[in-house]
Amino acid sequence: MTSESHVTRVGGFFSAALVALVLTFPAMAEAPRSEAEVESFLLGNGMEVVVIPDHRAPIVTHMVWYKVGSADEPPGKSGIAHFFEHLMFKGTKDHKAGEFGAKIAEIGGSENAFTSYDYTAYFQTVTPESLETMMTFEADRMRNLILTDEVIGPERDVILEERRSRIENSPDALLSEEVDATLYQNHPYRVPVIGWMHEMEQLNRTDAVAFYDRYYAPNNAILVVAGDTDAETVRALAEKTYGKVPRGPDLPPRVRPQEPEQNTKRTVTLTDPRVSVPSFQKSWVVPSYSHAEPGEAEALDLLSEILGGGTRSRIYQQLVVKQGIASAAGASFQGTSFDPSSFTIYGAPRGEAALEAVEEAIDAEIRKLIKDGVTETELEKAKNRFVRSMIFARDSQSGMANIYGATLATGGTVDDIEKWPEQIRKVTAKQVQDVAAKYLNPDHSVAGYLLPIAEAKN
Amino acid sequence: MTSESHVTRVGGFFSAALVALVLTFPAMAEAPRSEAEVESFLLGNGMEVVVIPDHRAPIVTHMVWYKVGSADEPPGKSGIAHFFEHLMFKGTKDHKAGEFGAKIAEIGGSENAFTSYDYTAYFQTVTPESLETMMTFEADRMRNLILTDEVIGPERDVILEERRSRIENSPDALLSEEVDATLYQNHPYRVPVIGWMHEMEQLNRTDAVAFYDRYYAPNNAILVVAGDTDAETVRALAEKTYGKVPRGPDLPPRVRPQEPEQNTKRTVTLTDPRVSVPSFQKSWVVPSYSHAEPGEAEALDLLSEILGGGTRSRIYQQLVVKQGIASAAGASFQGTSFDPSSFTIYGAPRGEAALEAVEEAIDAEIRKLIKDGVTETELEKAKNRFVRSMIFARDSQSGMANIYGATLATGGTVDDIEKWPEQIRKVTAKQVQDVAAKYLNPDHSVAGYLLPIAEAKN
Repeated sequence: MTSESHVTRVGGFFSAALVALVLTFPAMAEAPRSEAEVESFLLGNGMEVVVIPDHRAPIVTHMVWYKVGSADEPPGKSGIAHFFEHLMFKGTKDHKAGEFGAKIAEIGGSENAFTSYDYTAYFQTVTPESLETMMTFEADRMRNLILTDEVIGPERDVILEERRSRIENSPDALLSEEVDATLYQNHPYRVPVIGWMHEMEQLNRTDAVAFYDRYYAPNNAILVVAGDTDAETVRALAEKTYGKVPRGPDLPPRVRPQEPEQNTKRTVTLTDPRVSVPSFQKSWVVPSYSHAEPGEAEALDLLSEILGGGTRSRIYQQLVVKQGIASAAGASFQGTSFDPSSFTIYGAPRGEAALEAVEEAIDAEIRKLIKDGVTETELEKAKNRFVRSMIFARDSQSGMANIYGATLATGGTVDDIEKWPEQIRKVTAKQVQDVAAKYLNPDHSVAGYLLPIAEAKN
Repeated sequence: MTSESHVTRVGGFFSAALVALVLTFPAMAEAPRSEAEVESFLLGNGMEVVVIPDHRAPIVTHMVWYKVGSADEPPGKSGIAHFFEHLMFKGTKDHKAGEFGAKIAEIGGSENAFTSYDYTAYFQTVTPESLETMMTFEADRMRNLILTDEVIGPERDVILEERRSRIENSPDALLSEEVDATLYQNHPYRVPVIGWMHEMEQLNRTDAVAFYDRYYAPNNAILVVAGDTDAETVRALAEKTYGKVPRGPDLPPRVRPQEPEQNTKRTVTLTDPRVSVPSFQKSWVVPSYSHAEPGEAEALDLLSEILGGGTRSRIYQQLVVKQGIASAAGASFQGTSFDPSSFTIYGAPRGEAALEAVEEAIDAEIRKLIKDGVTETELEKAKNRFVRSMIFARDSQSGMANIYGATLATGGTVDDIEKWPEQIRKVTAKQVQDVAAKYLNPDHSVAGYLLPIAEAKN
């Protein structure tokens, strides 16, 4: 398995597509559902199971989500969650390294895995008759990996190379890391998912075994099966495979250090000869769905949509279309996270336009929105666009599986997913204006600037 | 004991005098010593003892240093080290709360305690005949505190009030906290010694007992006695008192998460109506004596002296005396810390001068020093001034005790202290220029700005 097939959420606004998808808050479409209802239940050993029937094609998406991500790592061991994702592709007592992947290739399926701040997930897309085989392999590696130094050492070289190619070689990624490390003053979201190089270099067998024994167990996992199957079939297969894995230790509540009050305005500047076009982003710590006051996360989602969600948004229309000073500009809100997360605006100048002009124009849009609010029409349109984008996500079987997995792994429930469109519909223009005023305080923001050497202002 | 009598190192450049003292790297004077030699030995239970005879007056300084500070706290429990310092003044099985203090007052002595990133220390200054009594009380509270909820609750209110009065009421302190939280991207020096308010509010009996049982034991403590006594007397008394305290658990090596490579230039701005005169500071992460390449920490000490150590320094002469644009300006290096620490320059404008002009003038001095180095004459003068300031510190009995305690608690040895003046003498002009070039990179710095509301540039 090559390093490129792992999708790592490394933060910032240039994230990979799959990651962007799972970060967008989940929703059931409002369109009438022809499919059977989503069902969820627990196995005897505490493993949560969600079944999402979808009979449009004879395929199933099989995912296992572990409720552990980089924000759960012990201090000084950054990267162990992602490193462990790699180790899950090694050999077990019953299966040599590569055997699982070879089987999937043989039956014409596909597989992948990814690690984020809050979860680690493994998935395969196969035909329904192979579901039991997938479960057998997946249940096997949940507890039976052989973790010797001979396995650990070479794979550590792989993750180090992954960091070099994805982060060290990318000024965008380097800046994003240091913006996050500045934005979060106390919470482990400050630490990159892939890990700090000097800590990754020290990760060893003891760390891997401790991590495996603590977090890889059925009572810390969620099985999501979407596709051409049904709850009874999945239940029977799951009991036969995962059901045999003994329950692991009871984990304490998932409490991470929280953010203190933020009192300052901060900037982070990276000047780098590899940069040709400057860009900037500005972020704030804001609540996520898991911990927000009622309605606030929904309002933040709509705020990001109205302000900078695509080509109809205020920022895009003003900077790219009308003024023509930006080649890209927008906003994003990472609502699906276990702890309070970030709201980000970003932009890059077009042609001769100055980066400062782009930033000022975006700031002006924020001030205007805080002062005058949003119109009923644009709120309605934003709700429609937003809910429609969820229908689109739902249309993909793996998209649906992602929505359920990510929501459940970050403290949400199936009910939250079902009710979400209704909650979005309820948001008022006043609420959108209020969250903008409450959270987008320019004096408590963190701005990141990516500059070519020539533009560096010392 | 009032909260004011606790000295807490809260970082930044406006630290209390005592704290500044213990942070300056220790040195024995080069003057011929008339006193008996410093002696150090271990008790059977692992407690380290240092005796510094000083017979000029019939007093002794008795200090116990615990090798635990805020940087050793578990994540999410910030403030527990300092909180515990307060709890050490509560009752034990043998002595009611306040009895120890009353005894010290009765015999005309004085006492204090302080917490830093790397250590927590307790001391009394008394006449030699009271030394045994001090040891008896101090050994008693090392293990016998009664930590009930009735004790914990009210004292937590005291530390919360201490944070309000020292930090929340002080824009300087608030800015310093967020500069540190920005400067250190991974190391716990990013977290304030006094703690984050929201975490302090949650500290409870369980946290206090766990901290006490882990860190308060003879094998994690250093006894420093300076004054009108001798090693044999101290050894006999120490064995009779501290020697009776059972050895605690073996602690793992003191490994904290270390800093990643820093790639960016960062700024932190606090605008506050309580600020009348703006000011700024700029910091870099640099090695401390514990982990520096040979000679680098000494060179950083001399660099800070030449650049900004007092009224003879380049920055002071240029900005305050010659240009008259600054009311204060200087540099500092916190060399005595367990892990890599910070080098800081700072300044505040005088009269109508702009803050930017002050910053630019300091930056110009740094660029000049990196380009042209320092002269032999100014290096020699700096060495003399620097070593003299240590003689001055040594002249105070508690100053000497502080030097030994702080050095030993941060990984240094008695030998390091003895050899330090010689190491300082060896530093060359080239080494000073080299550390300036190596560490004072403007593109990898963190600047903090304290601005009155009127000056805020949005």
